[in-house]
Amino acid sequence: MTIALDEERFISTMREQAEIGATDGGGLYRLTLSDADREVRDWFGERLAEAGLDVRVDEFGNTFGRRPGTDPDAAPVLLGSHLDSQPYGGIYDGQLGVIAALEFVRTLDDEGIETSHPVEIVNWTNEEGSRFQPAMQGSGVWAGAHEIGAEYDKTDSDGVRLGDELDRIGYRGEEPAEPREAYEAYLELHIEQGPYLEENEREIGVVTGIVGFTWGEITFYGEADHSGPTPMHYRRDPLVAAADVITAIRRIPGTLGERTVGTTGYVDVQPNSINTIPGEVTITWGFRDPDDAVVETAYGQVLDEARHAAEREGVEYEHEERMRASSVEFADRCIDAVGGAAEDLGYDDMRIFSGAGHDATHLADVCDTSMVFAVSENGKSHSEEEYTSWEDCYAAANTLANAGLRLAGGNARTEDG
Amino acid sequence: MTIALDEERFISTMREQAEIGATDGGGLYRLTLSDADREVRDWFGERLAEAGLDVRVDEFGNTFGRRPGTDPDAAPVLLGSHLDSQPYGGIYDGQLGVIAALEFVRTLDDEGIETSHPVEIVNWTNEEGSRFQPAMQGSGVWAGAHEIGAEYDKTDSDGVRLGDELDRIGYRGEEPAEPREAYEAYLELHIEQGPYLEENEREIGVVTGIVGFTWGEITFYGEADHSGPTPMHYRRDPLVAAADVITAIRRIPGTLGERTVGTTGYVDVQPNSINTIPGEVTITWGFRDPDDAVVETAYGQVLDEARHAAEREGVEYEHEERMRASSVEFADRCIDAVGGAAEDLGYDDMRIFSGAGHDATHLADVCDTSMVFAVSENGKSHSEEEYTSWEDCYAAANTLANAGLRLAGGNARTEDG
Repeated sequence: MTIALDEERFISTMREQAEIGATDGGGLYRLTLSDADREVRDWFGERLAEAGLDVRVDEFGNTFGRRPGTDPDAAPVLLGSHLDSQPYGGIYDGQLGVIAALEFVRTLDDEGIETSHPVEIVNWTNEEGSRFQPAMQGSGVWAGAHEIGAEYDKTDSDGVRLGDELDRIGYRGEEPAEPREAYEAYLELHIEQGPYLEENEREIGVVTGIVGFTWGEITFYGEADHSGPTPMHYRRDPLVAAADVITAIRRIPGTLGERTVGTTGYVDVQPNSINTIPGEVTITWGFRDPDDAVVETAYGQVLDEARHAAEREGVEYEHEERMRASSVEFADRCIDAVGGAAEDLGYDDMRIFSGAGHDATHLADVCDTSMVFAVSENGKSHSEEEYTSWEDCYAAANTLANAGLRLAGGNARTEDG
Repeated sequence: MTIALDEERFISTMREQAEIGATDGGGLYRLTLSDADREVRDWFGERLAEAGLDVRVDEFGNTFGRRPGTDPDAAPVLLGSHLDSQPYGGIYDGQLGVIAALEFVRTLDDEGIETSHPVEIVNWTNEEGSRFQPAMQGSGVWAGAHEIGAEYDKTDSDGVRLGDELDRIGYRGEEPAEPREAYEAYLELHIEQGPYLEENEREIGVVTGIVGFTWGEITFYGEADHSGPTPMHYRRDPLVAAADVITAIRRIPGTLGERTVGTTGYVDVQPNSINTIPGEVTITWGFRDPDDAVVETAYGQVLDEARHAAEREGVEYEHEERMRASSVEFADRCIDAVGGAAEDLGYDDMRIFSGAGHDATHLADVCDTSMVFAVSENGKSHSEEEYTSWEDCYAAANTLANAGLRLAGGNARTEDG
């Protein structure tokens, strides 16, 4: 059996959430724990209550809504994602995954379907990581990857403490931020944020895992000096060394793998003046690949390049690994549930590895997990130009719902009927 | 005949000025038109009055003190530099040139020497250009390179207007900021800010001219995107293009000339986030060479490299020339006055081209001009580590004084004696 979500209600719910923290450019500015986040949480809580769910907010603000199952011993199936956004982000991103999960439960009610396993919806706190680091913070705390006290003490760029913001918006709940029981499975719908589905003309991505990654920071220390009277051979220019590493980071992925990516995202130059040879330059960089060994190799190659560049320029340097995450392989039974649902519904699907981290990264440590990817036009995300057609949104939401139904044992109506 | 400055008084005057706006690191933080600048101007005005000079402040704050000559038709010889400093700059820079000029006049009085030409001392407003741009602003206004109204309206990084700051510190004078008569010559003592004197084991630089330079700005426009799921071949990364240009700017001088220098001083990356492919990157750069044709060639080569780099990365770019100054060749009679003075005094001197701009750049448009360079240890300047030994300061000051005496016709005592 398959179910079909109410397309009109689903789209209008997507549109409703997109009004909260809306930008003039058609995107969202809904940073975690901001007033806009409080507003969307309030709105979402009303929708959960309206659907008759048992709503819980944990002490890190993660919000759950549960629909009971028929088997008192069956572990719940969890579905969800996040409602927070990047600054000037898009309206789809993870929001689509939360609204699709809500629509799934509404449809179960509409259709009078009971499931043997409870079905639970979740909105994780601070997936984006743009206001407080790290990203995927709420799911990470819940899954035991981070100690909650340290995360409460994280501050944003204005020095505002995360724990204080949770209190301010009224979303520090009572329940411990941890799995209170075993979970049957976790499914997450998210936009792909890459071009592979579009490039291969597929409607649905059946996600088999998440790439591993490393983030690093290198600071080169040279000697600031007047740019005029200092001959070239007297210079110890940290920016030239940094430029060599930026070039290498562009080059290295092409020598390693089809899916390897490397990026320099951040540069800080001191004193950053038109007429002064820089004295100190910091860059941050990242590499991702489905194979952790490739990530390790890339990391080593960047450090080799940094050493050579520093020797050439006669500058000192130091480096720090800022974050490292192993690649995640999802559970076959969850992958099969997503793939089977897409096939049942007649969608063109493909197996795909996620190039970005998601809350599912942490959930894979707690229970069997997989994800559904929706098409991202031009692979754009974290931007107001992010776009997924309503048709593609609906196809992905239906796939999530039917995969959830498979895992939750949703044949009650059929049995009764 | 030669004169010898009072070494003890000269050094103690240098030390006095260095107390105003002193930093803990032994340097100066005496930005133009700041409270510290007002304090040093007040102190300097007292010293001028004490020396019996006729003091004038012009409407741009340039301060002059004149000692009359014996010939009523003779044009004045002007000597000076600037008392303002970089943020955390050194205590020598141009300050040495102003104090040496003061000490010259004091010594003329001590020795009872009259000169046929008037001798005038000057402290130019805002040579450094770190608070308000451009650098060499006061001398530029005075020499007619800039229109005074536009310069009054320049603002610092806090939005404070230059004209308002002149009023606030009480240094908007009555006199028009322009030469009120023909000038016989201009001499300026400054530290070298480069390593050539030290490298060649010379005590005095006889400055024959100032390099020409160009400053430019290039902005590359790519596409900001998530650093994870965006394959390498989808990227249009403006930072990679910028890195190519930074590398080229390091390479180009070595293909052009012994004295050619090229520097990337400033980089701005947007959005500058560890997890985002940059969308927009601006760099500023400069080239200098004694030969304007070499500067022009370097400029063209940077634009070629920018075009190639933009094509490789598939990004757009635009460029703007921010400033261009032709090289300046000083007048032989002033160069000879400086060289002759150094030889008379028994100092090891060398002819040298200035790698940095100075107030003398503008003065060369008004009258015959040359400069004296003092040794800069390790070529360091614009830094608290800037250092010139008192011995080297004194040698340079004596050279300035005796060159001034040659140009001002200072043989009154000999004639009388």
